[in-house]
Amino acid sequence: MNIVRRIEVAEMAGVSEATVSRVLNGVGPIKEETRQRVLAAADRLGYTPNAMARSLARRRSGNLGVVMPYLPKARLFSAHYFSEILSGIGSRAREEGYDLLIVFRDSDGATDVEGLFRMQKIDACLILGAKEEAGERETLRRIQEKRYPFCLINQHFAGESFNEVDADHKEGSYQAVRHLLEQGFRRIAFVNGPEAYSNSSDRRAGYERALREAGMLVEPDLLFAGNFSRTSGLRVAEELAGCMDRIDSIFAANDRMAIGIQQGLRLAGVLPEHMPAIVGYDDSDAAEMTSPGLSSVRVPFYELGEMAAAQVLRLLEEPEKAEGNSPFKVKLPVELVVRASSTKKLPKD
Amino acid sequence: MNIVRRIEVAEMAGVSEATVSRVLNGVGPIKEETRQRVLAAADRLGYTPNAMARSLARRRSGNLGVVMPYLPKARLFSAHYFSEILSGIGSRAREEGYDLLIVFRDSDGATDVEGLFRMQKIDACLILGAKEEAGERETLRRIQEKRYPFCLINQHFAGESFNEVDADHKEGSYQAVRHLLEQGFRRIAFVNGPEAYSNSSDRRAGYERALREAGMLVEPDLLFAGNFSRTSGLRVAEELAGCMDRIDSIFAANDRMAIGIQQGLRLAGVLPEHMPAIVGYDDSDAAEMTSPGLSSVRVPFYELGEMAAAQVLRLLEEPEKAEGNSPFKVKLPVELVVRASSTKKLPKD
Repeated sequence: MNIVRRIEVAEMAGVSEATVSRVLNGVGPIKEETRQRVLAAADRLGYTPNAMARSLARRRSGNLGVVMPYLPKARLFSAHYFSEILSGIGSRAREEGYDLLIVFRDSDGATDVEGLFRMQKIDACLILGAKEEAGERETLRRIQEKRYPFCLINQHFAGESFNEVDADHKEGSYQAVRHLLEQGFRRIAFVNGPEAYSNSSDRRAGYERALREAGMLVEPDLLFAGNFSRTSGLRVAEELAGCMDRIDSIFAANDRMAIGIQQGLRLAGVLPEHMPAIVGYDDSDAAEMTSPGLSSVRVPFYELGEMAAAQVLRLLEEPEKAEGNSPFKVKLPVELVVRASSTKKLPKD
Repeated sequence: MNIVRRIEVAEMAGVSEATVSRVLNGVGPIKEETRQRVLAAADRLGYTPNAMARSLARRRSGNLGVVMPYLPKARLFSAHYFSEILSGIGSRAREEGYDLLIVFRDSDGATDVEGLFRMQKIDACLILGAKEEAGERETLRRIQEKRYPFCLINQHFAGESFNEVDADHKEGSYQAVRHLLEQGFRRIAFVNGPEAYSNSSDRRAGYERALREAGMLVEPDLLFAGNFSRTSGLRVAEELAGCMDRIDSIFAANDRMAIGIQQGLRLAGVLPEHMPAIVGYDDSDAAEMTSPGLSSVRVPFYELGEMAAAQVLRLLEEPEKAEGNSPFKVKLPVELVVRASSTKKLPKD
């Protein structure tokens, strides 16, 4: 194996590690003088041409692919979820000397990741917005078989050996619901996202566990379905407004739905003093800024992006580690942030 | 010229225009069956191979480059400014069948755009975060000379024939300051960003024009310098707190600085009833959510991104229009949004 490390070459040449990578991998534009200095340092330190060649063989484009879902007019980059993850990815990619190739899914959600690799448009790939659907699992298996380096972010597939960086949404949801139970709430409506996301099934598992531990059963008429959008929260609020006598609190699977629900209930004439307790999820900026503050589960989105980028780029630098090794399955911890929306007094019966 | 248009090919083949582009330009992965259908439709309609070849010669990577500034730990994608512009760019790029190649500037702000074109990593380029600096103008002139298609977003260079999509910040700043004057304020502190940005010089021009029209002089001791960050607003607030007897209102060149100033003045012990009137700029989400609401100038960032992408991609589709034509210089209108921060009563002398 290679004992001399990139950072030593960088220090001797007086450049950043990113610059060393760019020179040695022949990606990206670079000043000729800098290039010569890096090559001389690599040569003097015996940073082996072998390792360089192996690396070069894997790093052709200098691009880290990022597959994004796409919704027309959704201002995707402005969503807390994506902007934070991308900031984390971008930070790490830049440090490693990679550019980001952002690829949008087709309107049916599909994307030909294999083609991106085959056409050498990307060297590695981070996949956002994956879900349990006919084609998706097959696509991922295929690029896995071909040993193209990729990592799923915030989604996992049971029974597969994909690289996955996720947050512990089972635990986060469990904490959220247990918090409501501790406040004395008993009829907790659960507004979840689409079931095809592991995000949603994890949240449901956490909800069920908290109820179970409290000796309670899941009541099907307390389960509601949204799609993570604020609009879907508004829609669910119409249903909720019709059964306010049956519920005393709400756990919504993300903040946008929670805020939509609050708005919808107000529109339906529910007075502030009768507003059910509510906990959202994601701890977006809006959770803090809305009034009353929205209790929510903080997810380290930036760190998810940063870690996934670091892991997948390490596979490129040290391909020997990728061969035959077990995949990395990371679950970062989350944290319940309690604000006024879930701590008010119980409404009178 | 070519009479049959892409949309007709798309309709006959039963696919999107984006798919037609991808097939005819040989970029991006595509199902073989779809490819055949598009080629057959193009053939039947006489969508000329000539035009295709010309287009192909110019569109090699299928990537639209986006040059971004970079600040470590700044969570760039989470900033209202960048996330909105990128959402606009992404929306249009996807419709046209392009992926986005996000390229970060070096720590000294430089980026070798020419190299990106030369290495065919991008077909066209949108440039964010440009400013009046030694190397930048030269770099842009060079890619201009080589006829590589690019467009600056939210920055303009006097005396150059670069393509530029900007917003009318002179007018926006003029409106903001006139609004303060109309409220009876006379000692208006102006907290601007770095002078190397045309953004800053435009704001200053608007500030000066409003004062001039009111028969007032610019007082140098009312001018303060930040760098568009909230932290710089906090810093300026320390200076402002020391001269509250000299000022009755503040115009800050963006919302983040305005919010930093408000926080800083509170930290310095300024009571709510003595808080000077303040107007920010950008109309970010925070302006609406902060309390009291922050008056601000709304900038159509999404539309800036969308329009710049549309213009620069049109140069690729219709290169004959690019030759010898005058550059496009767009200034989109902005709008003052008045909230509570600037409408309270004048403080007593």
